[in-house]
Amino acid sequence: MSERKTRLPRRHLLIGGAAAGTGALGAALIGNGLANSPNHLASAPGTASDTTFNGDARQPFYAKRQSGIETPAQAHASFVALNLNPGLRADGVRRLLKLISDDAAKLSQGTAALADMEAELAEKPANLTITFGFGPGFFQAIGKPVPASAQPLPAFNIDRLRAEYSGGDLLLQLCCDDPITLAHAQRMLLKDARSFSTVRWAQSGFRRAVGTEAAGTTMRNLFGQLDGTGNSPSGSAERERIIWGDQHTAAWHPDGTSLVLRRISMDLDKWDELDRGGREESVGRTLATGAPLTGNQEFDEPDFEAKTSLGFPVIADFSHLRRSRPDDSRQRIFRRAYNYEQLATGTGTTTSGLLFASYQASVAEQFTPIQKRLDELDLLNQWTTPIGSAVFAIPPGCAAGGFIGDFLFS
Amino acid sequence: MSERKTRLPRRHLLIGGAAAGTGALGAALIGNGLANSPNHLASAPGTASDTTFNGDARQPFYAKRQSGIETPAQAHASFVALNLNPGLRADGVRRLLKLISDDAAKLSQGTAALADMEAELAEKPANLTITFGFGPGFFQAIGKPVPASAQPLPAFNIDRLRAEYSGGDLLLQLCCDDPITLAHAQRMLLKDARSFSTVRWAQSGFRRAVGTEAAGTTMRNLFGQLDGTGNSPSGSAERERIIWGDQHTAAWHPDGTSLVLRRISMDLDKWDELDRGGREESVGRTLATGAPLTGNQEFDEPDFEAKTSLGFPVIADFSHLRRSRPDDSRQRIFRRAYNYEQLATGTGTTTSGLLFASYQASVAEQFTPIQKRLDELDLLNQWTTPIGSAVFAIPPGCAAGGFIGDFLFS
Ligand code: HEM
Ligand code: HEM
Repeated sequence: MSERKTRLPRRHLLIGGAAAGTGALGAALIGNGLANSPNHLASAPGTASDTTFNGDARQPFYAKRQSGIETPAQAHASFVALNLNPGLRADGVRRLLKLISDDAAKLSQGTAALADMEAELAEKPANLTITFGFGPGFFQAIGKPVPASAQPLPAFNIDRLRAEYSGGDLLLQLCCDDPITLAHAQRMLLKDARSFSTVRWAQSGFRRAVGTEAAGTTMRNLFGQLDGTGNSPSGSAERERIIWGDQHTAAWHPDGTSLVLRRISMDLDKWDELDRGGREESVGRTLATGAPLTGNQEFDEPDFEAKTSLGFPVIADFSHLRRSRPDDSRQRIFRRAYNYEQLATGTGTTTSGLLFASYQASVAEQFTPIQKRLDELDLLNQWTTPIGSAVFAIPPGCAAGGFIGDFLFS
Repeated sequence: MSERKTRLPRRHLLIGGAAAGTGALGAALIGNGLANSPNHLASAPGTASDTTFNGDARQPFYAKRQSGIETPAQAHASFVALNLNPGLRADGVRRLLKLISDDAAKLSQGTAALADMEAELAEKPANLTITFGFGPGFFQAIGKPVPASAQPLPAFNIDRLRAEYSGGDLLLQLCCDDPITLAHAQRMLLKDARSFSTVRWAQSGFRRAVGTEAAGTTMRNLFGQLDGTGNSPSGSAERERIIWGDQHTAAWHPDGTSLVLRRISMDLDKWDELDRGGREESVGRTLATGAPLTGNQEFDEPDFEAKTSLGFPVIADFSHLRRSRPDDSRQRIFRRAYNYEQLATGTGTTTSGLLFASYQASVAEQFTPIQKRLDELDLLNQWTTPIGSAVFAIPPGCAAGGFIGDFLFS
């Protein structure tokens, strides 16, 4: 295994400690620091805030762009899609957004919501982010044209979509490192939304808990694969362009983007029948380190030209890596997936999978071509089945006093 | 709020750092240390192991007593009850226990299970414990009399029990700080169990994530109450007696105990209608700090004699605290509860509650009298409803090479 993914090397601890003093180091490690990358920890321990525990770590709510997208992925997520009540019009939607925005802002900063009767459950925000997304029905309700960013995907052959995991007018994406805080925040927002809407679906997922591994370690999905390697790095111009767009590929708003959420069931039993070699070939990366089959370390560049002694490509042409990495550099997406697992009471059937979540400026120009290619040919399709699909336009953030989506009402 | 419950005081960080050196402190804090109590951290930082992250923290499997009972409660739990296949007899049960014990031992130490195809998902045990419990059907299958410790509870008036959350032959209780490790371990054990049994029910719950607050902080349930204050302290003779028994109250085995698991739904909407004073009165403790209404700090002794100026008891006679704290000191239990919350896809109904789990040497002498009293009168009953109930005899641990329950087969 490469050192990068296994653990924060001890030397970082020592350097950090020397630079910042023991107390601050302790604080940085169990506080905000854990939510950031090891690089960040090592290079700038002096930026450690005064927080002592991760529970006190806060992500901004009032900002140019919404949190919960570039925010280092928190341990737990809940995606809740609301159906706006029939007959709800712009004015009602506006009131709903104002209400939820105010409470989301408060909760993300560790303050009780307006009508919060369990104020103490709001005290540990633990990096809580609440991200809003708008579906087609949202725009219809407020009498505006549905932007391309909120249009459902075309149908794919592999799809076995179920209504109970698909679509939705208004998305609330809650991510948090603490499950109690998350449950409480979700309840507060749903209380706000009650008189305006019903819950269409709710899907929750998980990644590594804070502290299990070094912050920034790529998570593993339930196939045991490192999932998230081939993502644009934090702070890169590439990530900026992928998520928020540029002059060539514009999002529907300069500080907006779009979310594609696909519930993809993973057949673990069938996967287990395949040997290790077969499983590595299906993706084109090793299971142990996530390195491309042509490399040694997770972040080595894959070499699609490399051939085996028999003249076959080392990374198969139909591998997930080859098929999902486009030659056209505009076809890139930013992935931020969560695992899900449900063990049904009664039958005892386990259903496992991935809440595949990707953000991109343009669904049609970035996501859809990849999904089309995977639909045509991708070894992984033998073990995975999309059973839910939803697309949301992600509006920009808002200023204090404003509300998410306010620019649509002026 | 009392300092004890809010956070590990900064001074502990400094003392620890001075004594153990920066590197070791960092290790202690993000490693094992977080799973232990603040006292432990402060007084014995030198015991910090070489682990760097909580993912590497291990709990013993082969031991006199099973882990997962006195183990500081991990962030996530899954309770899975199996129905043994009809016709399974002692020999089959023995093979099943051997198989699961071997894999549980491995997984708890961060080693892949025998038939593990996703070996990498086992690498971060994160304090994983797997605790076995035996229900009535277990003893029937092996042709032994059912001990009192495994007998179902008598019926209570408040009960609205559902079969899909009640009973079971063999319990697997998995607790872990990391949700990915937990999901994987559960799947491995259920694969082992497949040819011997079916899943009767599975219930999962959560507490604070590691690092959200100081280790040892009492968790909050979804009513916002501190839940777990009136529990016997770690290492105390009282705890020893409560869980494992003494000459007066014996468990079914000197290193065994029993588990009562009650799924208790909590009506959050109705609870929210009650004002803060009413909610504090219903329990007899404050919401902010968990202090008894006659005290200032969480761990102050309640004074049941104290009267208001009008002559009423400050802690009401029908409060949960008064009713659940028996005058007879033998009627004590050790509680280790988890929160649950399900937001149903489709309807959007949230069902929240407590996976109430208590361990005691004798169900009949310790648990049942308390539950009887609460059944007769307890203000909290207005907002809580038991909807599942199961009792399991918890066998002792086993030696390396043995298996859980092996003493029953000699
Ligand atoms: C359950 C379903 C899926 C599984 C298990 C899965 C798994 C993986 C794995 C293991 C990798 C290699 C490591 C990494 O870069 O993260 C990967 C890469 C990738 N996947 Fe998936 N994936 C799934 C679905 C999808 C879907 C639906 C899309 C988009 C339509 C997609 C797009 C990508 C992209 C763009 C990459 C990065 C390729 C690169 O390195 O440029 N994946 N996936
Ligand atoms: C959803 C249901 C329940 C809720 C919300 C609840 C809540 C609480 C709270 C807030 C406390 C005070 C803080 C503490 O000591 O933990 C408490 C104490 C206690 N509860 Fe419960 N409880 C529930 C069910 C039960 C049940 C079913 C039993 C046993 C039959 C029980 C037995 C106890 C005991 C023994 C104490 C400690 C009393 C003492 O200080 O000696 N509780 N509970």
